[in-house]
Amino acid sequence: MKHLTAMNELSLEEIFSLIEEAEALKKGKSDRVLSGKFAANLFFEPSTRTRFSFEVAEKKLGMNVLNLDGVSTSVQKGESLYDTVRTLESIGADVCVIRHSEDDYYKELIGRVGIPVINAGDGCGQHPTQSLLDLMTIHEEFGKFDGLTVSIHGDIKHSRVARSNAEVLSRLGAAVIFSGPDEWRDADNPYGTYVPADEAVANSDVVMLLRIQHERHHTKTADRGFLQTFGLSLERAKRLKKGAIIMHPAPVNRGVEIDSALVESAQSRIFKQMENGVYIRMAVLKRALEKRENEKRGDQAYVLFN
Amino acid sequence: MKHLTAMNELSLEEIFSLIEEAEALKKGKSDRVLSGKFAANLFFEPSTRTRFSFEVAEKKLGMNVLNLDGVSTSVQKGESLYDTVRTLESIGADVCVIRHSEDDYYKELIGRVGIPVINAGDGCGQHPTQSLLDLMTIHEEFGKFDGLTVSIHGDIKHSRVARSNAEVLSRLGAAVIFSGPDEWRDADNPYGTYVPADEAVANSDVVMLLRIQHERHHTKTADRGFLQTFGLSLERAKRLKKGAIIMHPAPVNRGVEIDSALVESAQSRIFKQMENGVYIRMAVLKRALEKRENEKRGDQAYVLFN
Amino acid sequence: MKHLTAMNELSLEEIFSLIEEAEALKKGKSDRVLSGKFAANLFFEPSTRTRFSFEVAEKKLGMNVLNLDGVSTSVQKGESLYDTVRTLESIGADVCVIRHSEDDYYKELIGRVGIPVINAGDGCGQHPTQSLLDLMTIHEEFGKFDGLTVSIHGDIKHSRVARSNAEVLSRLGAAVIFSGPDEWRDADNPYGTYVPADEAVANSDVVMLLRIQHERHHTKTADRGFLQTFGLSLERAKRLKKGAIIMHPAPVNRGVEIDSALVESAQSRIFKQMENGVYIRMAVLKRALEKRENEKRGDQAYVLFN
Repeated sequence: MKHLTAMNELSLEEIFSLIEEAEALKKGKSDRVLSGKFAANLFFEPSTRTRFSFEVAEKKLGMNVLNLDGVSTSVQKGESLYDTVRTLESIGADVCVIRHSEDDYYKELIGRVGIPVINAGDGCGQHPTQSLLDLMTIHEEFGKFDGLTVSIHGDIKHSRVARSNAEVLSRLGAAVIFSGPDEWRDADNPYGTYVPADEAVANSDVVMLLRIQHERHHTKTADRGFLQTFGLSLERAKRLKKGAIIMHPAPVNRGVEIDSALVESAQSRIFKQMENGVYIRMAVLKRALEKRENEKRGDQAYVLFN
Repeated sequence: MKHLTAMNELSLEEIFSLIEEAEALKKGKSDRVLSGKFAANLFFEPSTRTRFSFEVAEKKLGMNVLNLDGVSTSVQKGESLYDTVRTLESIGADVCVIRHSEDDYYKELIGRVGIPVINAGDGCGQHPTQSLLDLMTIHEEFGKFDGLTVSIHGDIKHSRVARSNAEVLSRLGAAVIFSGPDEWRDADNPYGTYVPADEAVANSDVVMLLRIQHERHHTKTADRGFLQTFGLSLERAKRLKKGAIIMHPAPVNRGVEIDSALVESAQSRIFKQMENGVYIRMAVLKRALEKRENEKRGDQAYVLFN
Repeated sequence: MKHLTAMNELSLEEIFSLIEEAEALKKGKSDRVLSGKFAANLFFEPSTRTRFSFEVAEKKLGMNVLNLDGVSTSVQKGESLYDTVRTLESIGADVCVIRHSEDDYYKELIGRVGIPVINAGDGCGQHPTQSLLDLMTIHEEFGKFDGLTVSIHGDIKHSRVARSNAEVLSRLGAAVIFSGPDEWRDADNPYGTYVPADEAVANSDVVMLLRIQHERHHTKTADRGFLQTFGLSLERAKRLKKGAIIMHPAPVNRGVEIDSALVESAQSRIFKQMENGVYIRMAVLKRALEKRENEKRGDQAYVLFN
């Protein structure tokens, strides 16, 4: 049994192994290996993309799926996340996929629940399967990370993607550049240097745009003028290196982070990222449940809550 | 790949072919032919009947089902319908069933997305699978359409059913009669003549009642007095021709459009319509996905958004 | 076809047979016997535990699952529960699992719908599958009921569990003790005598705690002081007989009904109850659908609504 809560848990060897497995699954490797197992998806924040991506991954693996939305659950009755997960474990869930608005929510679970937890996004913290699908998309394109330059554009400070990706890309040998408004610089993210948008675009193999999280910090820095100053406008896109690709975790605010006409352009990998996400999540689920049979805990082995 | 957005897309030959296929499926024709495919149901308006009818149809065909309710999706994050459907396509949906409050919502999708769209109701527009299940129910009863008289009662103006059915029934050779309050006459629907309720009931082989859409136009013409003047009261039902049948798209407002005691009477086909709906939707889904394999588009073939 | 709406419908023989079946399923008895059937879960009150327990049970039996939450259904359009269930029956549901805030909601269904109804909790009424899983858990521990003493602690008056369990435990030969605040005594439940908490705990083989239903009766008798006076505090737990077990229907208000440290102690069977719930529900579903094929009603056999 293997949790996945943050990218820095994964060795480079494990990362390459997950990408390799995902690429094999994408090429049609037989995949209903978790048939009859149960996956529980707990999404305490709304999400189409990530939840359905996990659901498709689970069903392609032959799993049964339990979907809990934050609103319709016992959590309304004041139950702790720990008790909810232990309940799901008791009724037969083999793995738990969780998105939660609180940073590090998973810390109350690890070491105390008997099933693997896969973090599908915690607050402004981590979103490791998003990082992995980004890495897979880059690897599919360039066959390597070492020597590439990746620029990350926008709200560095509040982005789960910026946090996860900058660290791991540095570790993989890529150079990371940040670009965006001054107030969104992140003092806790030491993995890149800040440069103006024009310069970032002109020097990158991968231009990675971040979503403006209107629903998170209700600012209006964005929108009017943002595209011209900080986003990937048609004008700025002319600076792209030959062979460079455009990425975005989506959903895209068309005309804010990126000109709408570029979303499905030849250089864009935005919808390919979504496609790859399913295969990465299949690989992560398979890893999570590997050898679980051998590790089953006795009934009384749980750590006490106090 | 074949969309289904409105009844007038279907030739008479195609309509008969769908009815025939549905009747064969109802008789037990082997049906798990879409095993392993993914259906995405996007319902932006609440609906028990139609959504679950599609879900049962999909599962009987062996499909995996993704259910999106309007509230819990990225649409909250301001994503366009086009981007939502393209996302679902990217993560592996093979077909998309959509109900939306906006007329003609599907026009931004057709020709631009790579998976078939099945319209499960658009605003005051069309509801083609409802029309088809109505036709199947009439065909099951009479074995023909030509020469039948069908009266449609109630809110002609705002009804998706009236719109879809009047056109196609005329095309199939049936005579269409309308009956209802003057303010609900539909100048854009030329397929029938308006007569008083007593006359309509007395002359019809099929009495098709429409639902009073309280949630749509908040009028109170309905209710008190509506049943007596415009609905199918017990008294008025005595005028029904021998062999005539009663239909209603449901949910029924018992005591408003129809006397409660008639809902499950020998002449009513209301619950049979629901039963037939599953088989019609299976036929429509099979048609939608026919030969899709041969038509798969290349990665860069999408039309640009602008 | 067999409904299950209240414990007093079940003979002792049937109860033992359900427990035996559940124990066999838990030991790994082959279980996909309802493959291809459809279960509809209608939950008009929020519930994680019970709904997912049923969903897992249904999926382990190979069933297709339709989930209706109270909010997103036609019930919003004013449809009666009877019409909703008849609709689900018409579109192919083979069994209906219902939780509803109204006592005896099922009385408008029994004898009138053509599929079995399983009560998953009605108002302050019954919750028979919870009773059965409690019985299974006791049986698993002691191999018998006769001669055991079971104390039920807390809000006797508003508890579905207290109602169902006290009756059936008495019938099975156990002695029932109640304990809790005076205002929560239940004059309509004659199956036990009231004693102080210390005495109840000291004399019981099974200490069964009830959940304080904050969401139901908005009192604050609970919380501060409740644990010390009426709940299972660490101090009071020292009085437990050797071999006695602790039960709770969950979700637990840790620190209110029971000290948090006791929830997963060696004497607690709280998470085992949840585990057993899945197998009991599988047994109940199998019973509900036994021989259904032979009993199918004709089209016109439904009782009229009036």
